[in-house]
Amino acid sequence: MTLQPVSSWTSFGGTLSVHDHDSEACGCPMRFAVFTPPRAKDGPVPVLWYLSGLTCNWSNVMEKSGLQRMAAELGLMVVAPDTSPRGEDVADDDAYDLGQGAGFYIDATEMPWAPHFRMQQYITEELPALIGSAFPADMERQGIFGHSMGGHGALTLHFKQRARYRSVSAFSPIVAPSKVPWGRKAFQAYLGDECPAWGEHDACELVKRQPSDAHILIDQGEADQFLEEQLKPELFEAACREAGQSLTLRRHPGYDHSYYFIASFMEDHLRHHAKALKA
Amino acid sequence: MTLQPVSSWTSFGGTLSVHDHDSEACGCPMRFAVFTPPRAKDGPVPVLWYLSGLTCNWSNVMEKSGLQRMAAELGLMVVAPDTSPRGEDVADDDAYDLGQGAGFYIDATEMPWAPHFRMQQYITEELPALIGSAFPADMERQGIFGHSMGGHGALTLHFKQRARYRSVSAFSPIVAPSKVPWGRKAFQAYLGDECPAWGEHDACELVKRQPSDAHILIDQGEADQFLEEQLKPELFEAACREAGQSLTLRRHPGYDHSYYFIASFMEDHLRHHAKALKA
Repeated sequence: MTLQPVSSWTSFGGTLSVHDHDSEACGCPMRFAVFTPPRAKDGPVPVLWYLSGLTCNWSNVMEKSGLQRMAAELGLMVVAPDTSPRGEDVADDDAYDLGQGAGFYIDATEMPWAPHFRMQQYITEELPALIGSAFPADMERQGIFGHSMGGHGALTLHFKQRARYRSVSAFSPIVAPSKVPWGRKAFQAYLGDECPAWGEHDACELVKRQPSDAHILIDQGEADQFLEEQLKPELFEAACREAGQSLTLRRHPGYDHSYYFIASFMEDHLRHHAKALKA
Repeated sequence: MTLQPVSSWTSFGGTLSVHDHDSEACGCPMRFAVFTPPRAKDGPVPVLWYLSGLTCNWSNVMEKSGLQRMAAELGLMVVAPDTSPRGEDVADDDAYDLGQGAGFYIDATEMPWAPHFRMQQYITEELPALIGSAFPADMERQGIFGHSMGGHGALTLHFKQRARYRSVSAFSPIVAPSKVPWGRKAFQAYLGDECPAWGEHDACELVKRQPSDAHILIDQGEADQFLEEQLKPELFEAACREAGQSLTLRRHPGYDHSYYFIASFMEDHLRHHAKALKA
């Protein structure tokens, strides 16, 4: 696994770097960004995985969320992967919510998606191995968070790998993909007709099967254009209550689904993870 | 002067809003953004003008600088105008550094630019009148700052209208447009052959004619790809010393010309203006 440097910037005393590599899991070149805080000069630092939403790549969160300021202050590394495999040889769909840019952080079993759309394996196995070997990352202290489709990814990957991701949070996550149009469309395409296996990738189902020891932070804008049809945080709130899962769900009047919303509460999320990871 | 709302977002408890209007100065529709801090609910707040660099419009600084956080905390309104007139009826050039996106904050006297490229009048007269009438802005407390070409705009407009802009700062500004390729190309096109009038739009010349009572803050990245050919902060440093102008010029190792640099020091600039404007 050779890293190809793409870009690098000094930012808040740390370094934001972008890299390409040939992914075995996805069978194509993949690009990701890492913010390395100044404190990493003194030794390995905790790692936060930020999973982006539909259509996004590494750049949205690194350009628009302002995370570097507080990540530098708290001494957190933040990794921003892409949201799917991409390229001419990779299956795609004209819709923004399927195919390239819409990997949903699962491993597809159906054609034409199965050969490349293996984002769960990529995010939870291949990329951590790469980060652990190439960056000053303390892989015993990992947390995960994300936005929208990436909030779904963060919650579900946390429940799937509790030992790896010790802290978790989300901005306006898709919490019940089995029940909303975005998730049903993707699961149908990537996993096939509705079946119990869908529940293995649905945060509302996973928390009911076994709650996590972590305290979950979720922020949701009340003016989010996707709130009622796609996000439905009340379903996760009810599932957590039923399961005895510790959750703080904050509803913010006036805020929408954009990075202006994410930026407004990014500091709280980074502090949430730093506290859990003892950064 | 009727404002057409384009977009609006809640951000850090305040509001980021984008507006179109028919500009008399530029003879075409113009678009700008305003961040209104939460404190404006209690009465008029100081206004900061942020002038962007080549190719930019309102969105670069509002999306990438993270200014909303500290502007909200300090109670500062920030206005981000476009960098030139635009549109099919407006003269243009294939180069990124002339014509649309490259107004240089001066009023052109030469053809084909003179009919629309009147950014000085637009920024210092028409837009302030509009902001003062349509937003909770305290027009007795205005400051100005900017990046690159917009740093040139901020410095020169401050020297031209010291009573209006009581505080001033810049990120990696063009300080000597009469002496560097970007500025010479633009001044030749917009103002005609080199003549003493060029000096009226050159910060190094203006400070020598009459220093300002304001303390000027400039941040410059030492890894800025334009530092040696286009920016030359040492010329402004020398001119300020000669003129007795109060200046803090900070050189930052490793930082380039990007918004990752601007974001890293945005808080310092907002605090600089807030202190001068007693926000």
